[in-house]
Amino acid sequence: MSLSEPCFDVSHLAHVELLTNKPEESLDFFVNIMGLTESGREGESVYLRAWDDYEFHTLKLTASDQTGMRHVGYRASSQAALERRVAEIESLGTGIGWNDGDLGHGPAYQFLDPDNHVFEIYFETNKYVAPEGEKPALKNQAQRNHSRGVAVRRLDHLNLLAVDVDVIRDFIPKALGSRITEQIVLEDNTLAGCWFTVNNKSYDIAYTQDHTGTSGRFHHVTYAVDQREHVLQAADIFLENGVYIETGPHKHAVQQTFFLYVYEPAGNRIEVANAGARLILDPSWETVTWTAEERKKGQAWGLQTIKSFHTHGTPEVD
Amino acid sequence: MSLSEPCFDVSHLAHVELLTNKPEESLDFFVNIMGLTESGREGESVYLRAWDDYEFHTLKLTASDQTGMRHVGYRASSQAALERRVAEIESLGTGIGWNDGDLGHGPAYQFLDPDNHVFEIYFETNKYVAPEGEKPALKNQAQRNHSRGVAVRRLDHLNLLAVDVDVIRDFIPKALGSRITEQIVLEDNTLAGCWFTVNNKSYDIAYTQDHTGTSGRFHHVTYAVDQREHVLQAADIFLENGVYIETGPHKHAVQQTFFLYVYEPAGNRIEVANAGARLILDPSWETVTWTAEERKKGQAWGLQTIKSFHTHGTPEVD
Amino acid sequence: MSLSEPCFDVSHLAHVELLTNKPEESLDFFVNIMGLTESGREGESVYLRAWDDYEFHTLKLTASDQTGMRHVGYRASSQAALERRVAEIESLGTGIGWNDGDLGHGPAYQFLDPDNHVFEIYFETNKYVAPEGEKPALKNQAQRNHSRGVAVRRLDHLNLLAVDVDVIRDFIPKALGSRITEQIVLEDNTLAGCWFTVNNKSYDIAYTQDHTGTSGRFHHVTYAVDQREHVLQAADIFLENGVYIETGPHKHAVQQTFFLYVYEPAGNRIEVANAGARLILDPSWETVTWTAEERKKGQAWGLQTIKSFHTHGTPEVD
Amino acid sequence: MSLSEPCFDVSHLAHVELLTNKPEESLDFFVNIMGLTESGREGESVYLRAWDDYEFHTLKLTASDQTGMRHVGYRASSQAALERRVAEIESLGTGIGWNDGDLGHGPAYQFLDPDNHVFEIYFETNKYVAPEGEKPALKNQAQRNHSRGVAVRRLDHLNLLAVDVDVIRDFIPKALGSRITEQIVLEDNTLAGCWFTVNNKSYDIAYTQDHTGTSGRFHHVTYAVDQREHVLQAADIFLENGVYIETGPHKHAVQQTFFLYVYEPAGNRIEVANAGARLILDPSWETVTWTAEERKKGQAWGLQTIKSFHTHGTPEVD
Repeated sequence: MSLSEPCFDVSHLAHVELLTNKPEESLDFFVNIMGLTESGREGESVYLRAWDDYEFHTLKLTASDQTGMRHVGYRASSQAALERRVAEIESLGTGIGWNDGDLGHGPAYQFLDPDNHVFEIYFETNKYVAPEGEKPALKNQAQRNHSRGVAVRRLDHLNLLAVDVDVIRDFIPKALGSRITEQIVLEDNTLAGCWFTVNNKSYDIAYTQDHTGTSGRFHHVTYAVDQREHVLQAADIFLENGVYIETGPHKHAVQQTFFLYVYEPAGNRIEVANAGARLILDPSWETVTWTAEERKKGQAWGLQTIKSFHTHGTPEVD
Repeated sequence: MSLSEPCFDVSHLAHVELLTNKPEESLDFFVNIMGLTESGREGESVYLRAWDDYEFHTLKLTASDQTGMRHVGYRASSQAALERRVAEIESLGTGIGWNDGDLGHGPAYQFLDPDNHVFEIYFETNKYVAPEGEKPALKNQAQRNHSRGVAVRRLDHLNLLAVDVDVIRDFIPKALGSRITEQIVLEDNTLAGCWFTVNNKSYDIAYTQDHTGTSGRFHHVTYAVDQREHVLQAADIFLENGVYIETGPHKHAVQQTFFLYVYEPAGNRIEVANAGARLILDPSWETVTWTAEERKKGQAWGLQTIKSFHTHGTPEVD
Repeated sequence: MSLSEPCFDVSHLAHVELLTNKPEESLDFFVNIMGLTESGREGESVYLRAWDDYEFHTLKLTASDQTGMRHVGYRASSQAALERRVAEIESLGTGIGWNDGDLGHGPAYQFLDPDNHVFEIYFETNKYVAPEGEKPALKNQAQRNHSRGVAVRRLDHLNLLAVDVDVIRDFIPKALGSRITEQIVLEDNTLAGCWFTVNNKSYDIAYTQDHTGTSGRFHHVTYAVDQREHVLQAADIFLENGVYIETGPHKHAVQQTFFLYVYEPAGNRIEVANAGARLILDPSWETVTWTAEERKKGQAWGLQTIKSFHTHGTPEVD
Repeated sequence: MSLSEPCFDVSHLAHVELLTNKPEESLDFFVNIMGLTESGREGESVYLRAWDDYEFHTLKLTASDQTGMRHVGYRASSQAALERRVAEIESLGTGIGWNDGDLGHGPAYQFLDPDNHVFEIYFETNKYVAPEGEKPALKNQAQRNHSRGVAVRRLDHLNLLAVDVDVIRDFIPKALGSRITEQIVLEDNTLAGCWFTVNNKSYDIAYTQDHTGTSGRFHHVTYAVDQREHVLQAADIFLENGVYIETGPHKHAVQQTFFLYVYEPAGNRIEVANAGARLILDPSWETVTWTAEERKKGQAWGLQTIKSFHTHGTPEVD
């Protein structure tokens, strides 16, 4: 394969493990407000899934004395592709090693990003098989949609904080074969934010600068809904249920996603979003670079980014 | 590359050349009702694009004494990938050969599908560069959205008729590296319809049985809008402008797309659709098979498929 | 008051009493699928309300060996207005007399329409006071929106069948002070349908011809949702829950309402609808008359009216 | 008529005359961005209408060296009702007198509110008759919807500034027979804002405190669209066309309207809004009172009211 060819070794963002120090309330939030379904439990963890996630789970919610993210998982496009990635990551020197997998998937190779977030990649997965009572009316859908709460459709993307986003921009494409779709470059040429994708979604992971200088922190995880109107309904549901809305609904200038941010009970930031029909189909997409000046205009329709968006991450830093 | 690995050689459906025997009226329809923008003219053809199509054009509208489709184009993911595809197609024995390209792209390799539709694949493309007056407010968008008529966002997919869909099901994955996401199998085990994709969209091309036994016919081409509500607005716009609505808005059971079909003035069927947040992310997706019995239930919400959907294609057959 | 002045004696359609011979299943449908809330029980009846209905109830669901409607209630705009209406109705000779009211309202005057449907009018009402657990986040809303199932917002309108719609057209404006906003006149000059309103809604009651020649039958009752997208979501919910969808979602040509019809378990037809921002603000509105020819075009976007829409009513007729 | 009966003498807000010192740009904004249609010209004024406004015009745009509102018009429900209102207003001592009417309506009686805004009431009107090229596909619609720009549906409401809102709260119900649906009462018991309606809309006029102490100023006029999604599309259209978005889209806590505010080129604030299916049907509606404390929570989903919303009015004050 020539060096100039795009890499398709990694298929998609697969799951996130979130830590909560309020496990009962967090679980209630994800099940009854976000509308996820529990697909399993093991140890301190509950496995959760949206109604059109095809795998066993996309969220592993783990009781802890901490908050934030314990690990993020990606699924490779084949066993051979997985092996190519592992070889590449080992050459980058940040590999941790193989584990035996989890309730939701087979053996996974773990590694660290340069900001000390734990990643894993695997190929063998445990596809969700809907039990009686969860079978959908249409057979091309993973699970019945109970229309409970926000009733999000599927995992969409993840946002992590990093002390040095420039180093991340170099690392992620090498580790995952990702493309950089958009980025924000400050006046001193450092990166304020960077958006990556391994597939046709316009991003599956984004990194933004951690102004506290703390590494390994989590910014938010996002579930997709089908329509912008569903994001508005989500806002109504969060309001009615006393969930703290940080900002939105509004439209990002970067990536044009229609968004809404809330905090789940333990303080982890959760996003509900809709990207419309936007896809990155171009195999030779050129990174869109936003300047600090351009970002000062605020979000697409003028809303200034709320201050806590730049400061709040989990675990929280004093 | 092992045989069990998915193929990523072809990136996406790129453009369709439609024939019209009412060129003035068809052009008016595509520009003023569908909201496409003219990006060039050459010979008997006008090149058209939706506001977020990244290439020069996605629709080549050619004056003719015929209707239907002259050719369909796909873009390869790299020059090397293109060459791999050409070698594969030549081995299938349906290659036509290279041309010098078009206003919208570089050299393309043409071939026939088993039903005699003309395909081409290319890699070098002519990306759209918005002239003054067409520059968008947000730089991550290909072109200004004028909100003219339906104002479709981007090319979505194509549907062709074929005398023998079984043969097509065998051919397309070999030629394009496509996966089969869904299909309809009749009681006698023949295929009534088959849906293919080369990327994360749930389909970029579909074939359905031509009950007239005529080969090479066109069923419809689809442009995507961002929201289901935009499909409803499209219906209002078509009504107000006297465009013939064949059926919809409604939701397909197969693929779950929210759809609306109309005929452009020359009789070619055009679809406006929204797929919500549905994507095929699973690299090991298993084809969903619908039986004739299941399809008798009609579309998702019970609407029976309109008779003309099974009979009308272009060019028309007596 | 001069005869030429519009009448404002009746404020709005207030409630409907539906009969069900499957009381458990019907109640489950209205509470868990439609999202109504039970506000009381008495005898064979359960009182139900949508989350923004301001009165105690808008649906009285009564177990019976029959289906159909037992009575419909309207609220007068004042006690004096109620008395004016009663005097008028008595002069029309179809009065039944006063009752002591119900859980949901004070004394009501009952009367028959010319097709033997039972009506009542009252002024004193029992406004809903949300108990703990039902208090909304926003104090200008009647009740908490639990987003359960379709989660309809408020009662919208009623449709009754009548053997002779011409006689109804004469009667309803005299009895209720209604205006006739739209009507369908057949080639023989008889009325196929007639739409009435007492306020700014484009209709609160409609009558259509009963082709079976049976009097006193019920066609459907409609609850409003806020957006057309919510009607689409309702269709998804009905599909997922196995509710029979008769027709829709689609847009009526008459009144332009976006509609969806289902049958509740006992067979009574229920509509979920959205009227957009359409209101009849003109105090001198002139009735819009549709011809049989115009109606043959089908609904707004071309869907032909389903045959059962012309034949199915409750109670059913052999 | 007993004093306790609601008053129905005034049917609806009918039109607003806005002053612009940039007449060409303002006209371009209203026609090409908002999607209004010109229905006439006279002197320095252009008469404009939305596609479902039933009268000749709802906006009279008048070139001037000033900005702000010259007058607001309401339509009475009958000639007799108009005469009752005039008698009442004369007794309030703020009458100006009769004029001969305008292109859009017959004789009107003018008067001042206590903050010196000019009002007029009339009954005889000039209903819009769609000329060839403006006839709608559906005959129950006033005019063809060209889907040009935001393509607003109808005039919705008006917001005026007043030095003393308490005095206004006393005056408007007496002058127009309006009901007070909601209000904001400050800690010192003065009114910060007050919302009035003469019909089933939850408000047709609102007043908010003018912190500059200047009387006669204009805050905004609002046109309704059918869906919340259309407000989002309006935001996209304003962005694409370089129109200044002040705030929104978001949902008001007061009245729950989904809103978006922009400034037209001369600086007059314009709102595009959707109220969902919310109507005030209760003839004995009790005013909802919000405290300063409650308002500090911001809008429904937490957005703080933008500072300019409290300061910007037209004409501007140094």
